[in-house]
Amino acid sequence: MTERDIEESLPDKEKNLSEWYSMVLEKAEIVDIRYGVKGFIVYMPYGMEIMKNIIRLFESELEKTGHRPVLFPVVIPESNLRKEEEHVKGFAGQVFWITHAGYSKLEEKLALRPTSETAMYPIYSLWIKSYKDLPLKAYQTVAVYRYETKATRPLLRGREFLWIEAHNVFRSREEAYKQTLEDADIFKRVSYEKLGIPFIHVKREEFDKFPGAEDTFAFDTLMPDGRVLQIGTTHYLGTKFSKVFDIKFHDVDGKYRYGHQTCYGIGLSRILASLIMIHGDSYGMVLPFDIAPLQIIIIPIPKTGYDLNKIFEYCDDIQRELIDKGYKVKVDKSEKTPGEKYYYYDMRGIPIRIEVGPFEVDNRRVTLFRRDLRMRVTIPREDLFNKIERLRVDITENLRRKAEDKIKNTIKYVSNLDELKKYSEEGFSIFKVHFCGNEECAERIKNETGGFEVRGSGVSEDGFNGECIMCGKETSKIVYLAKAY
Amino acid sequence: MTERDIEESLPDKEKNLSEWYSMVLEKAEIVDIRYGVKGFIVYMPYGMEIMKNIIRLFESELEKTGHRPVLFPVVIPESNLRKEEEHVKGFAGQVFWITHAGYSKLEEKLALRPTSETAMYPIYSLWIKSYKDLPLKAYQTVAVYRYETKATRPLLRGREFLWIEAHNVFRSREEAYKQTLEDADIFKRVSYEKLGIPFIHVKREEFDKFPGAEDTFAFDTLMPDGRVLQIGTTHYLGTKFSKVFDIKFHDVDGKYRYGHQTCYGIGLSRILASLIMIHGDSYGMVLPFDIAPLQIIIIPIPKTGYDLNKIFEYCDDIQRELIDKGYKVKVDKSEKTPGEKYYYYDMRGIPIRIEVGPFEVDNRRVTLFRRDLRMRVTIPREDLFNKIERLRVDITENLRRKAEDKIKNTIKYVSNLDELKKYSEEGFSIFKVHFCGNEECAERIKNETGGFEVRGSGVSEDGFNGECIMCGKETSKIVYLAKAY
Repeated sequence: MTERDIEESLPDKEKNLSEWYSMVLEKAEIVDIRYGVKGFIVYMPYGMEIMKNIIRLFESELEKTGHRPVLFPVVIPESNLRKEEEHVKGFAGQVFWITHAGYSKLEEKLALRPTSETAMYPIYSLWIKSYKDLPLKAYQTVAVYRYETKATRPLLRGREFLWIEAHNVFRSREEAYKQTLEDADIFKRVSYEKLGIPFIHVKREEFDKFPGAEDTFAFDTLMPDGRVLQIGTTHYLGTKFSKVFDIKFHDVDGKYRYGHQTCYGIGLSRILASLIMIHGDSYGMVLPFDIAPLQIIIIPIPKTGYDLNKIFEYCDDIQRELIDKGYKVKVDKSEKTPGEKYYYYDMRGIPIRIEVGPFEVDNRRVTLFRRDLRMRVTIPREDLFNKIERLRVDITENLRRKAEDKIKNTIKYVSNLDELKKYSEEGFSIFKVHFCGNEECAERIKNETGGFEVRGSGVSEDGFNGECIMCGKETSKIVYLAKAY
Repeated sequence: MTERDIEESLPDKEKNLSEWYSMVLEKAEIVDIRYGVKGFIVYMPYGMEIMKNIIRLFESELEKTGHRPVLFPVVIPESNLRKEEEHVKGFAGQVFWITHAGYSKLEEKLALRPTSETAMYPIYSLWIKSYKDLPLKAYQTVAVYRYETKATRPLLRGREFLWIEAHNVFRSREEAYKQTLEDADIFKRVSYEKLGIPFIHVKREEFDKFPGAEDTFAFDTLMPDGRVLQIGTTHYLGTKFSKVFDIKFHDVDGKYRYGHQTCYGIGLSRILASLIMIHGDSYGMVLPFDIAPLQIIIIPIPKTGYDLNKIFEYCDDIQRELIDKGYKVKVDKSEKTPGEKYYYYDMRGIPIRIEVGPFEVDNRRVTLFRRDLRMRVTIPREDLFNKIERLRVDITENLRRKAEDKIKNTIKYVSNLDELKKYSEEGFSIFKVHFCGNEECAERIKNETGGFEVRGSGVSEDGFNGECIMCGKETSKIVYLAKAY
């Protein structure tokens, strides 16, 4: 068997991302897009197994930082949804409405949750009485519903998508602001460290905030076509919602004060999409080790005249050792050819393949193939565990480093639109520019650059004085510009 | 500190179950019923933590038996829902309808899933081509929506409730039937063994089947008021749905055949309700060890003139050991009195409490209190781990045995309605009777006994000949009668 037995069956990812992505979703059996209702997809078993692993990682970090799980209804009475004025303005056009049940018309229309502020906060107002009840930190992992009018794309933009939303209440602005940084830490520990998905952490501009928020922070990652994708957000809501929903507490000094709120959205569907697009190659998906539902696949390589049972036994022995060590491992003894098996597991991104033929059995060796670098190495049988412990770290690190280099190397500071155009043609896709903060300037930039949007200023990044790239006004604000999903 | 410091703050469970239940839901912070939409409740953090543990146990058993996770949309197009005639008849009156989105009317109404056959099976028909694709075993953990016209009660009967639904396809009737027994095994391993919730496994009568099923099996448990509660069902669907949704496979012999289907519903919300009602007492909830979000609470007992830090250190040391052993354990160093703390953790059903005062510190002892028996024992510090390992098993076994004795001792075979009345007055609440199978007889029984319903015949229970308790017709069928939720 040589590597040539496996065909690159997918289009080039860099040249034809969209087609590549659709084919991977189908061939790796991530989602099925044939449900028949626009914007609604089916998570297939393999896709859902990966998703559950992603969810587990985020939930575990949220719980370590003091968040507790809750579950609020999917329906929100129209009157609740309408209570915060900016909020409803932002969402009214996107809401699915339940108007009937059984054979009767409902007295009050019910919205399917587009986000849960107006579901949760009336109840928060009942839960919070005293400063002793604070901070209140709670999250739920649910699907949300938005009647997107833009073109929908599986996992990237759907009318039903999965997310985790955390909704916290604090005594002070300072504590709430600290939470927005903790949220970024959680994102770093999971998205960046475990999934190898780097991101830029930005503060969105005033005109680009979440409806009802005082400040919106976001996590944008880079897709292979140079466009950025928002995979998470944190909002500082101030006391806007707590005033509307009467979330106030009896403070230490005997006075009543409104709670300072944050909410945090982790875009699970989009994170799965990023995982596929960022790490994948022309053989299919490539999964970081910790997130893979199957981490190691053992493939027997039969040879005419050689006892297949001896090979099987050797495979079983390896499997036993690795299961004991806590890995997710399988032997594929089906009648498919090794080549067919390689194709199958490569497409699904299984991080490590172990090949066992007569050579390995007779010489007590193991041949390892790592999916990320597509490299093969043969080692003594007794070195297996140590080698895999190393690979476990190496694979995720390699994926992360590659993705991070890509995002770092595509960012360029430019001081005028001509420069932007020039570097854009040279392949740069994210620009840092001075920006006055004005929405009209943002619109003009977008129109005159063929779609570059103001994504906001980098959190904890230093600025310096300069002139707005559009209007020339003096400013110290530097923002990221990028085309976006 | 003595036990007398804690008041029994709840009404007697046996005498006033309904009030007791409402108070526990509130005081133990399981759910909040003040959401304001009839039949929709909020899972509070502690309730959701328990629920997540229940879900984890069931999902793990489902995965061990070859089921894989999937996720289908919450919306079902009206035309799909209407495809299987009996099915839609059974559910049409209970469906929530989405008719509008944003500012427009939808072309086709969308149902919120009341159950997912008509969402999943059109896609199953695309996934299944050959006998090699079978069996297909998939599950999803989701909320379902039913516009109940009966009175709703938190966790027991809601318009939104949590369940796991598994939908399987097999090559033959035999394989599908075997699945219905595997489903019962899964129920036994989780509900009975881990949660201590016993059940009777019955085959529902023809007139009481799931709409569209050929056979319906159910798991009924016993509540303290003598009424039974259906906490799960398995349906053998035969080829009824596979014919409607065209789920057929190319068989080994070259012919096309329709798949034999089963579906399996695990009523998570009701299982949580059972856990509370069956094991609870007048101090609150009592949780089996494995399901408890917090398994061991350590409470320092300060004494005037004795160094509190010495007590704290001793507590911390115990906590460290128990965390190392994998237990979920906490020290409560807050300023509340020990009595207040006892009350708080007793209400929430924490299985083991460790009390540490000067006596324990000075004599290297530990005082353990087990919540289920409300018994206290003082042991040498070095015996702690072994003692807890024993308690871990004992507590769950004790809860299970008590619940099982209760259900066993309340079942009585009777041959006429006078006997039923007599034994009912003596406290029996489930009766076995000969029954002809006729729906009219079932109706009459219910009317003439003040509400005893035919719950179906016991799976793998032997029968003998007798006369229908209502019409006197000769029959070998024996069914359970009980009042039901």
